[in-house]
Amino acid sequence: MSSVIKVDIPEKSYEISVAPGSLDQLGEQMASLKLGKKVLLVSNPMIFKHYGERAIASLQNAGFEVVSYNLPPGERYKTLNSIQKIYDIALENRLERSSTMVALGGGVVGDMTGFAAATWLRGINVVQIPTSLLAMVDSAIGGKTGVNHPHGKNLIGAFHQPSLVLIDPEVLKTLPAREFRAGMAEVIKYGVIWDAELFTQLEASKHLDQLRYLKSDLINYILTHSCQGKAEVVSKDEKESGLRAILNYGHTIGHAVESLTNYRLLKHGEAVGIGMVAAGEIAVKLGLWQKADAERQNALIKKSGLPTQLPADLDIETIIDALQLDKKVKSGKVRFVLPTQIGEVKVTDEVPTDTIRQVLQEMAS
Amino acid sequence: MSSVIKVDIPEKSYEISVAPGSLDQLGEQMASLKLGKKVLLVSNPMIFKHYGERAIASLQNAGFEVVSYNLPPGERYKTLNSIQKIYDIALENRLERSSTMVALGGGVVGDMTGFAAATWLRGINVVQIPTSLLAMVDSAIGGKTGVNHPHGKNLIGAFHQPSLVLIDPEVLKTLPAREFRAGMAEVIKYGVIWDAELFTQLEASKHLDQLRYLKSDLINYILTHSCQGKAEVVSKDEKESGLRAILNYGHTIGHAVESLTNYRLLKHGEAVGIGMVAAGEIAVKLGLWQKADAERQNALIKKSGLPTQLPADLDIETIIDALQLDKKVKSGKVRFVLPTQIGEVKVTDEVPTDTIRQVLQEMAS
Ligand SMILES: NC(=O)c1ccc[n+]([C@@H]2O[C@H](COP(=O)([O-])OP(=O)(O)OC[C@H]3O[C@@H](n4cnc5c(N)ncnc54)[C@H](O)[C@@H]3O)[C@@H](O)[C@H]2O)c1
Ligand SMILES: NC(=O)c1ccc[n+]([C@@H]2O[C@H](COP(=O)([O-])OP(=O)(O)OC[C@H]3O[C@@H](n4cnc5c(N)ncnc54)[C@H](O)[C@@H]3O)[C@@H](O)[C@H]2O)c1
Ligand SMILES: [Zn+2]
Ligand SMILES: [Zn+2]
Repeated sequence: MSSVIKVDIPEKSYEISVAPGSLDQLGEQMASLKLGKKVLLVSNPMIFKHYGERAIASLQNAGFEVVSYNLPPGERYKTLNSIQKIYDIALENRLERSSTMVALGGGVVGDMTGFAAATWLRGINVVQIPTSLLAMVDSAIGGKTGVNHPHGKNLIGAFHQPSLVLIDPEVLKTLPAREFRAGMAEVIKYGVIWDAELFTQLEASKHLDQLRYLKSDLINYILTHSCQGKAEVVSKDEKESGLRAILNYGHTIGHAVESLTNYRLLKHGEAVGIGMVAAGEIAVKLGLWQKADAERQNALIKKSGLPTQLPADLDIETIIDALQLDKKVKSGKVRFVLPTQIGEVKVTDEVPTDTIRQVLQEMAS
Repeated sequence: MSSVIKVDIPEKSYEISVAPGSLDQLGEQMASLKLGKKVLLVSNPMIFKHYGERAIASLQNAGFEVVSYNLPPGERYKTLNSIQKIYDIALENRLERSSTMVALGGGVVGDMTGFAAATWLRGINVVQIPTSLLAMVDSAIGGKTGVNHPHGKNLIGAFHQPSLVLIDPEVLKTLPAREFRAGMAEVIKYGVIWDAELFTQLEASKHLDQLRYLKSDLINYILTHSCQGKAEVVSKDEKESGLRAILNYGHTIGHAVESLTNYRLLKHGEAVGIGMVAAGEIAVKLGLWQKADAERQNALIKKSGLPTQLPADLDIETIIDALQLDKKVKSGKVRFVLPTQIGEVKVTDEVPTDTIRQVLQEMAS
């Protein structure tokens, strides 16, 4: 099974292709887009070791001149300094307006390569080859790119749409299990906010916590539907004025928990899982969502091996204070995305603090 | 006299206002655009000394909270390092999506502030208050922003349209005379490539080399028509696919001469003046342009106190080689913008090297 999702955005449309083994078609696919001859492939040492040579061979067979560069791995190198390294390589190899940067990696590599491409010669082509589940279903789609400021995540960035997103599900085989589970949180999110059919497919699977338990048809289905969900939402709202907000489902409390534990204890997806449980319970308490549906959601989160309780030792009042600092706060009111039925949510800033407090108390471990 | 030029670009339109004394209306004008409360004013020490307090007072009177930051002056600080300083100030003062950076200065301040605004929180508002003639008629309009890489000018950048361009011609009074003349080269350029009426108005003025010789009506006319010219061209071609190329009139040989003299001997506008003389002569030799019109152009350049001959000791073959390295080269062919009549040009890559050589020899000093 292979699928193509079209992303339609004013001035620039592009395709997300989901196809097992397609890493070897990278060169061909890029050639058909008439991109310039020069390619800078950006990855990290570990991912490059697994997939770098195949990507390069495919590009070279299609006539591209390829240079590659490995970023040091990890979120803490997602800095302007690393971007400067990419610029240096771009200059040394005389990348031109028509040249392309190819991001081969998870969200960290994708965000940095995207930002470098957005700002080199005021914007050159970028092709995203996401290799983590999170990058496949989330960060590679939508054109957000960014790096961290020493004092805050993703504060520096640009919108820059890729020319192509190439997803080869087979590369997930080498992804650490915990990263896989973290990505699954975003998949479940699309089921709750946008795609009830995806939700029921996830329910039908006995396991969701490890790739090897998932039939390859199901994983393709999951990837295609998740990408389709994100693509639809961002196409309808390229620059985050309205609809895109629903993608923050589970992220209001998720972000607070993530930052209060210094981005160390929990993976982003784990925090989002906790945040979805919380948002679901809030929606139930406010009479917006049926309890039975919240339980179905929570069962999926558990089946994915994700936590559903707050980390120990996290003070509830501290979480409530942290919500106020969130980017999503507008004139002092905390914005929540709350489900109304499976596949549908609404955005509201009318959640009483007492309700938040009560739900968090119930989730304390 | 005051005028407003509308720039129509998909997704974002904005106004260029040209009005003497309008620096004191900055706050009012920004308030009418419903921009957020927080403003970061970026300038340099010299310009800030002249105009900073007035800009701040106007903003505060309109209810804005203002912080200001002065970049160290000069092209050699147009670096990613300076941008990082702007980011730090933005963070310290908690600039938000709805906040605005205001650039008060020449092209250097404008390009850097524009880039910082383009990339802070993936893009916040920027208002341009150009204070040099070049910035007024050229760099503040069109949405190009950028900084230099240690090995090349403007290699790092982004497209980011301002919310407002506020031009107060009175600030030109403190601009050094040589900077004024350099800016006049770009004005003459608009006359040749786009606006025959502007050209004849320039001819009608006895002097063009110093602001104090120009009637205030004429300077307003010049600013309005130049801005209109640039705005029309960039609106028709926001991302430089075609028409925008005509703005490079005089810049092919201009850039070569500028870079071969290490950006020290000549101001950019001076190099452009030399480049326009060269391009005009090439057009005449190729039978595209009438000799009499080329002479009219050259007279304007002289009247502006700009050089019309090559700098001494510059080897002609070295210039010809340098043309090959230019960004405007496409598959080995040097691209020239050549006049066909006053107010009209064509773009061509069919100029025989011998013709270039001959013209340069005639221009040797
Ligand atoms: N741009 C956006 O819209 C957006 C959206 C969500 C998240 N993000 C960003 O994405 C980043 C997180 O992305 P992530 O979760 O992919 O983290 P990541 O890029 O750090 O990847 C997680 C780990 O898995 C490894 N890895 C990835 N693919 C692999 C594979 N196929 N085989 C073996 N190892 C592999 C990586 O080397 C890394 O150690 C964050 O920086 C976040 O800010 C961006
Ligand atoms: N973004 C674009 O589209 C674009 C187009 C052309 C040029 N540029 C860039 O613009 C820059 C050149 O701009 P510039 O010529 O304005 O140089 P500049 O900004 O360095 O200004 C020239 C000098 O004049 C001083 N100055 C400016 N206004 C003054 C005033 N009113 N009173 C007293 N002093 C004043 C400045 O401090 C500086 O010393 C270059 O970096 C170039 O790359 C950008
Ligand atoms: Zn997320
Ligand atoms: Zn110029």
